[in-house]
Amino acid sequence: MSIIPTSELIEKLKKGDRRILGKAITLVENDGEGKVELLDYAYRTMREDCLVLGITGAGGAGKSTLIDKIILAYRNQGKTVGVIAVDPTSPYTGGAVLGDRVRMGMHSTDTGVFIRSLGSRGALGGISQASKDALYLYKSFGFDVILLESLGVGQAETEINDFVDVTVVVLVPGNGDNIQMAKAGIQEIADVFVINKADKPEAETVYIQLITSFDNLPENLRPYVVKTVATENRGLDELLKCIDLALKRQLPNRFRKKKERVKCEIASGVRRRFDEVLSLRVQDMLVPVLVGNLTPFEASKQVSSKIRVEE
Amino acid sequence: MSIIPTSELIEKLKKGDRRILGKAITLVENDGEGKVELLDYAYRTMREDCLVLGITGAGGAGKSTLIDKIILAYRNQGKTVGVIAVDPTSPYTGGAVLGDRVRMGMHSTDTGVFIRSLGSRGALGGISQASKDALYLYKSFGFDVILLESLGVGQAETEINDFVDVTVVVLVPGNGDNIQMAKAGIQEIADVFVINKADKPEAETVYIQLITSFDNLPENLRPYVVKTVATENRGLDELLKCIDLALKRQLPNRFRKKKERVKCEIASGVRRRFDEVLSLRVQDMLVPVLVGNLTPFEASKQVSSKIRVEE
Repeated sequence: MSIIPTSELIEKLKKGDRRILGKAITLVENDGEGKVELLDYAYRTMREDCLVLGITGAGGAGKSTLIDKIILAYRNQGKTVGVIAVDPTSPYTGGAVLGDRVRMGMHSTDTGVFIRSLGSRGALGGISQASKDALYLYKSFGFDVILLESLGVGQAETEINDFVDVTVVVLVPGNGDNIQMAKAGIQEIADVFVINKADKPEAETVYIQLITSFDNLPENLRPYVVKTVATENRGLDELLKCIDLALKRQLPNRFRKKKERVKCEIASGVRRRFDEVLSLRVQDMLVPVLVGNLTPFEASKQVSSKIRVEE
Repeated sequence: MSIIPTSELIEKLKKGDRRILGKAITLVENDGEGKVELLDYAYRTMREDCLVLGITGAGGAGKSTLIDKIILAYRNQGKTVGVIAVDPTSPYTGGAVLGDRVRMGMHSTDTGVFIRSLGSRGALGGISQASKDALYLYKSFGFDVILLESLGVGQAETEINDFVDVTVVVLVPGNGDNIQMAKAGIQEIADVFVINKADKPEAETVYIQLITSFDNLPENLRPYVVKTVATENRGLDELLKCIDLALKRQLPNRFRKKKERVKCEIASGVRRRFDEVLSLRVQDMLVPVLVGNLTPFEASKQVSSKIRVEE
């Protein structure tokens, strides 16, 4: 991919070269040479005080428009913004690349904004390795605010929670999934609910259903709820205010979250390397299982018995 | 959980004791004693000729009603039906158990139907270990048709595809997620699309959008599309016919799918055992990383270097 040596890449990153940030992400995403050095550099130099905002929501919720407006709102506060967007594209298409160009749109001349789309493969309800890696690079690059768009799956998945400071869940009135989503555990990961397209007549119903669903939660654990009409810039100030409040509430969790991130990161690196060895052993067992000499469960026991971890 | 010895459990399963099937699933789901023997037994005795039908779709699509009617339609053909339902419940609630009672409803007196709800934890867009295990037990118990309900995540995830013969995706008119879902790769895993609530005026739009989205596919790869009104039993005959056609089309893939299942099963067994060891090693590395002596990436390299797989 890149013919620039990693040391030079790092020098240019230090100087704040946005074009090089793009190259660095591509290198890391493609497991290019120098990936580990680059991530080590990013990890050692990353800002710990930036705001990492997770944004999720079902399709059709107007998430992209809302993200556009959130970017503008932070830019008006003089803050730099990095966006990691995950496109729900088929693994069979190259949608992520096209998405980049379309989505940069209104921000393409603003040097205080950087948007990168990443494929969502392997990130169902969680956070892909590519997004995690990009997050280190963004933090090291020094953005004040990092928006991490994730896929709305209407399902509790807490891993991503450890990688963001505040999670915003976008709902839209008249979508049957709304309340189901709120019930299906996303309530436990949402810090702020946004009811977007709040000028729709059904908005009030969604609002009341949502608020009511928090009845059993202690007051200091109830998510904030904000109504917005992103296309008309309505509710954005209040949303940013709620994000601030949610961040203050989350501050005591920062160290715990960091610990979880570190654990998750070490483990996933080991698992990735282990999986390469494992696939060979699985292949060895395939025929004995297919001919009926072993069940898959016996086969995995046999493989496991050959794994040693030295002290 | 169970105080019945595994050998006795197996004897009773052989006799077709449905109550014992329920106990066996609970034992396996809870990693109870005798789990491996039970799964070995199920694997060695399972029917290879039953129809495993995956049913997925966004919330609010009327999936439960449709599943009810599909059960009845197969029962009318004299076939026995086992259902593995995955409830999108929060990990914080015990919803799966309640769901069981509610959903058995109209079938509770029919001994040719067996329904079991399982938690969806760790099954995002895929298939949970508990569902896979239940599937072996169902196949061994001898159902003619097994319905495996999975979570609609609007996302391509192909693993589940290897565990079912035919995948039915349920859409509902007027839900913004429909076409997004169809675009987001689910098209690649769907054998049959059902447009439920087809009496809604928007149904025709969804139908045409859907059919049009297949334009680029070769004819023999285009999913079947059926309109149903499950509440009125409309379209069920056609749906079963399309499932039959889809099964015939899938028959050449059966051996390949079996191979993938076996690989997936061996690997996941090994990974589960490995994860127990891994978590201890990760814990050892936590402090060096948190104090800044190592990055998580260096730490995972160090852990990996200590893993040996004997020949």
